[in-house]
Amino acid sequence: MGAARPACPRARIGAVNSAHSPGAPIRAGIPEHGRIPKYYAVKSQVAALLDELGEGGLLPTERELAARFEVSRETLRQALRELLLEGRLRRAGRGTVVAGPKLEQPLALASYTEGVRRQGRRPGRTLVGLERLPCPAALAADLGVQQGDPVWHMERVLLADDERVGLESTYIAVERVPRLDTDFSPDSSFYDYLREQLGIRFGDADEKLETVLATPREALLVGTPPALPMLLIHRLSRDTEGRPMERVRSLYRGDRFSFTTHLSAQVTDE
Amino acid sequence: MGAARPACPRARIGAVNSAHSPGAPIRAGIPEHGRIPKYYAVKSQVAALLDELGEGGLLPTERELAARFEVSRETLRQALRELLLEGRLRRAGRGTVVAGPKLEQPLALASYTEGVRRQGRRPGRTLVGLERLPCPAALAADLGVQQGDPVWHMERVLLADDERVGLESTYIAVERVPRLDTDFSPDSSFYDYLREQLGIRFGDADEKLETVLATPREALLVGTPPALPMLLIHRLSRDTEGRPMERVRSLYRGDRFSFTTHLSAQVTDE
Repeated sequence: MGAARPACPRARIGAVNSAHSPGAPIRAGIPEHGRIPKYYAVKSQVAALLDELGEGGLLPTERELAARFEVSRETLRQALRELLLEGRLRRAGRGTVVAGPKLEQPLALASYTEGVRRQGRRPGRTLVGLERLPCPAALAADLGVQQGDPVWHMERVLLADDERVGLESTYIAVERVPRLDTDFSPDSSFYDYLREQLGIRFGDADEKLETVLATPREALLVGTPPALPMLLIHRLSRDTEGRPMERVRSLYRGDRFSFTTHLSAQVTDE
Repeated sequence: MGAARPACPRARIGAVNSAHSPGAPIRAGIPEHGRIPKYYAVKSQVAALLDELGEGGLLPTERELAARFEVSRETLRQALRELLLEGRLRRAGRGTVVAGPKLEQPLALASYTEGVRRQGRRPGRTLVGLERLPCPAALAADLGVQQGDPVWHMERVLLADDERVGLESTYIAVERVPRLDTDFSPDSSFYDYLREQLGIRFGDADEKLETVLATPREALLVGTPPALPMLLIHRLSRDTEGRPMERVRSLYRGDRFSFTTHLSAQVTDE
């Protein structure tokens, strides 16, 4: 159980998340017993260096950093690995640079395309595969078809300014979009296609959001380190008539995405 | 860039996420080149075993599993570590058992207490510390005070059925709740206290959700492995008059929590 202990003086070592950020943890990650793992102390020091360097700044080599902070290469690597997983650093060519802030995607927006555009970035999508398969039992009710009826599975890599940031799997009944394989340009917005070509409009959706680790295949497709924490959104959507539309599994790089939402007391009282 | 290649036959090895779940990735995590890391193959086999054992089922020892799947203890441990991080397994006493499903907390609910109750679990909170400090510059506008004005920082471990599941940091101006240190029972709902004792009602809030790694201190307080992926929600709330209320940093175990939301076209058109 968490101990109910009196407040104790704040630790003074620099916080790993920038201490200037209103969202930073106030106690800087240090347990009350005051002992911290060596890699974590180095991580704090490297994080402070990143603040100095600023976005896009080139990180010194591992050798230089290990010498500067007087730790082994292995300890340094553990610190760098966490900063990479958290999106504070990113690989660029043969070096490592200070990453920019995470993209902030409004959860209320159904459209990835629109969300990325609002942040002044250029959305894109690359087709991984489109296949037609008999509907598995678990998906039948969600898609409004019988088990075994034909469904499409379309998988696309999500891009922002040509950077790979996610992976999206869409399942939809073939009867709803019979010519998906010939009429749809997979680098464009699927919702635009549904609306403009077929008159199907997005009505509402239930979503579930969780954090998962990238599988080896997903890491390869999205170009991330294996086991990078990802944000996974499961969506089940209906059209404006309330008919089942699609089931979507959207995986976003945890180091590159955050999601925003607005709560109001009205919604809370539902 | 992700290759635009034609659909290829589905891999046949069991999916790590139960293949029966509608949210499972269809390709089971295997890269198109067909080579998978050995630990990942074992992870798939252990995951299939977990499905057989069912929730609460006791996992065989590492020695037995390593022998059964003919891998080294080290390879096996990497597989088990990922399953633990993902919340498929949990430690119980000296053994490891199959974990239950993640809690599903509606994002639209402002109250942790209410969300946990709706799932038939018993919410609880344990005080870590309450301190009074001069408002940092970064927080002043958020809390509607001047830099240096006194603010409370209250930190509580979040419980569900006595299990530690998260850590919550609340910042609020002392002038709004002058007697927080003497009048408030830290194991109860803060929103109930604000409403019933002070007539302050939750109006609306902006939230940002992201995935982060637990710091050593956070891992210790929440009782998780270090560097467990967590879901972090930043909240900035206002009362029904639109006055700034609190800034909250809520950290939820990524292996124990998911968040649900409902989208509608109305919201989308905002």
